[in-house]
Amino acid sequence: MIAELITIGDELLIGQVVNNNASWIGEQLNKTGIRVHQISTISDSREHILRALDEAKGRADLIIATGGLGPTKDDLTKTTVCEYFNSRLVFSEETYKDITELFNTRAYQVTESNRQQAEVPEGCRLIKNKNGTAPGMWFERDNRVFIFLPGVPFEMKAMIREYIIPQLREMAGNEFIYHKTILTQGIGESFLSEKISQWENSLPSYIKLAYLPSPGLVRLRLSAYGMKDSGLEDLKITTESLIDDLKKIIGEYIYGYDDDTLEEIIGRLLREKGKTISTAESCTGGYIAHRITSIAGSSEYYTGTVVAYSNRVKENVLKVKAEHIKKYGAVSEQVVTEMAKGIRELFGTDYSIAVTGIAGPDGGTDEKPVGTTWIAIGTPDKITARRFLFGDNRERNITRTCLTALNMLRKEMVF
Amino acid sequence: MIAELITIGDELLIGQVVNNNASWIGEQLNKTGIRVHQISTISDSREHILRALDEAKGRADLIIATGGLGPTKDDLTKTTVCEYFNSRLVFSEETYKDITELFNTRAYQVTESNRQQAEVPEGCRLIKNKNGTAPGMWFERDNRVFIFLPGVPFEMKAMIREYIIPQLREMAGNEFIYHKTILTQGIGESFLSEKISQWENSLPSYIKLAYLPSPGLVRLRLSAYGMKDSGLEDLKITTESLIDDLKKIIGEYIYGYDDDTLEEIIGRLLREKGKTISTAESCTGGYIAHRITSIAGSSEYYTGTVVAYSNRVKENVLKVKAEHIKKYGAVSEQVVTEMAKGIRELFGTDYSIAVTGIAGPDGGTDEKPVGTTWIAIGTPDKITARRFLFGDNRERNITRTCLTALNMLRKEMVF
Repeated sequence: MIAELITIGDELLIGQVVNNNASWIGEQLNKTGIRVHQISTISDSREHILRALDEAKGRADLIIATGGLGPTKDDLTKTTVCEYFNSRLVFSEETYKDITELFNTRAYQVTESNRQQAEVPEGCRLIKNKNGTAPGMWFERDNRVFIFLPGVPFEMKAMIREYIIPQLREMAGNEFIYHKTILTQGIGESFLSEKISQWENSLPSYIKLAYLPSPGLVRLRLSAYGMKDSGLEDLKITTESLIDDLKKIIGEYIYGYDDDTLEEIIGRLLREKGKTISTAESCTGGYIAHRITSIAGSSEYYTGTVVAYSNRVKENVLKVKAEHIKKYGAVSEQVVTEMAKGIRELFGTDYSIAVTGIAGPDGGTDEKPVGTTWIAIGTPDKITARRFLFGDNRERNITRTCLTALNMLRKEMVF
Repeated sequence: MIAELITIGDELLIGQVVNNNASWIGEQLNKTGIRVHQISTISDSREHILRALDEAKGRADLIIATGGLGPTKDDLTKTTVCEYFNSRLVFSEETYKDITELFNTRAYQVTESNRQQAEVPEGCRLIKNKNGTAPGMWFERDNRVFIFLPGVPFEMKAMIREYIIPQLREMAGNEFIYHKTILTQGIGESFLSEKISQWENSLPSYIKLAYLPSPGLVRLRLSAYGMKDSGLEDLKITTESLIDDLKKIIGEYIYGYDDDTLEEIIGRLLREKGKTISTAESCTGGYIAHRITSIAGSSEYYTGTVVAYSNRVKENVLKVKAEHIKKYGAVSEQVVTEMAKGIRELFGTDYSIAVTGIAGPDGGTDEKPVGTTWIAIGTPDKITARRFLFGDNRERNITRTCLTALNMLRKEMVF
């Protein structure tokens, strides 16, 4: 099954919005065994939508288009789709009910333009949009599937995940793409590739390896294409054994697989052990707390953070000794250790994480350049502190500090 | 002048890499007065490249293609370009010299595959690549310009910025594109469109309006295409006056323009007034702190946050009255007000923000469903608290709470 994506919106063409939708959909289809052949990004214009549909139809079995389904005047996809399929707009009671219910939960009034969102093309299957007013549309014509979705990412994603992928999986039949992703933290791409070069060279020819670096992490993805009835099980066993070999080489850097995140893994560990944690942050400015609390149910094990951006807060709230800040500086082993101790006592938790560093772009010295970071992990028995040098980009420093700290805690709890 | 972009690479189709190149190039061309009509993302295959070039040629005056110029076997663009233009590869002494010099500065050896990078199609202008081995190629055929560039972002960007844009600017001549974006917070897209429908209908036909919603925000973009010598200045004046009219209708929701962010605006306001701020967060779990501290230099006005995920921390650290938590619940006007008061005193700041809510997915009740949020702003004179209902998606609740809180602070400081 060959797919094409059509992403509609002037904002994509003028560079105001990056096309994250297309890569996300590409990834989901790929996992389902459907290959994306082309992505066309086009403007919000009738002629352009009609032509793009025609072109894609000549090349693909499945066409997914996003964007232009909003309630405002610049949204032209719905009327153009009617024209393309020789259909007309009819009022859908069911969609109107969905919209009304959605608005009730938010205590909003349904307006005239919302009501228009319930007018949908005749002759298509509607895909319920539980997060917004525009339903998705599924057409089947000339042996092809055409799907139209809103461009708002979380609306589109829920519809793809919960409705479209299950449907497509059945249609995709016997083909599959098998991916297994190994997640590493604490080692750069080039060092990693050197360490595992022998292992990489020994991979069977039908398994492809890709390096996916992002700040603080490198993901390694193994991919294989094939037919389900000829060896999917064998392939899984082969992959498991390849990963076992890999663990012997870089086991200390591997923290998880596939869609795992460090904050999820830590959450699971804390919950299993019935332990709690608090954090004390300086350079990360609340980002560690944000990552930990992005997990639903984190209030069971996470009590909170003190972001001590000023030294006064470090002293008064976290009980860091003023003379230590003066003598060693706010970015020092002494201060990070006292922060980890202070927050653990103040918030009464089993574990604690403390970080202090120079995120940049200013504040660096010869001795402590921008990127210098101290991380401490407090446990019931001891406090362990380590120094890192993360480079000169503020945003990446914050991300790398956060991921490194979470992984230090994970190791402390696992090993 | 109409442009099309062709981005070549399997990694873009399977979602391994987000197409940041396309949006970046789109933005640069747009600023130069060149409209991007379509972006086509295609695979590393000869047939696909040939067909995409043919299609783009039928629609555009300028075609810019990126990717597939590397030294490995899966890079097919150069040979395919030769085929398309009926050209052949010849050895370029100049490019070979560039490669050798580049490698000398990095103390690398020039290998055979690097040497092959100096083989270039006959009959094109070469664009020097000071950051890599693959030069760019500029063809002029049938009144059209075809440009081929490597896909490595910093190589491609330097070539666009330093060579291509100056050349195109001369060619583009008198055309221009003018954009002005108005940023709103606190009103949904459909309500906004109803409120401003009269204003929208009165827009001159040469000015286009687009709605760009994202969680918690709606951006309104005015765009106009025209000729420099006939009214760029007039257009700016017209736009200013349109925005003045708009302010009379939805002024309370407008927080900024173009690339402004709420955290930047707040930072500027605090710095100008020489004031400081602290935050006390529950449901946002540190996200407000993260956004504020993402601004370089925020340590000048931001002292930090206490994320009080547990009631114990609310009581012990923020001095919220235990009996109030018991009587009114942790998500209540009383508690959020005491949080705003407590953090302001603890951290000794002029202003404070406090939030408490039910982010979800669990924890809701009939009386206080998921999404119920209290936000308080503390100032030297008073504390103002408001209740919101943000819906049932955890991630969006966190974002919307954060943006609403920042905008409440902004209003408190401005009005």
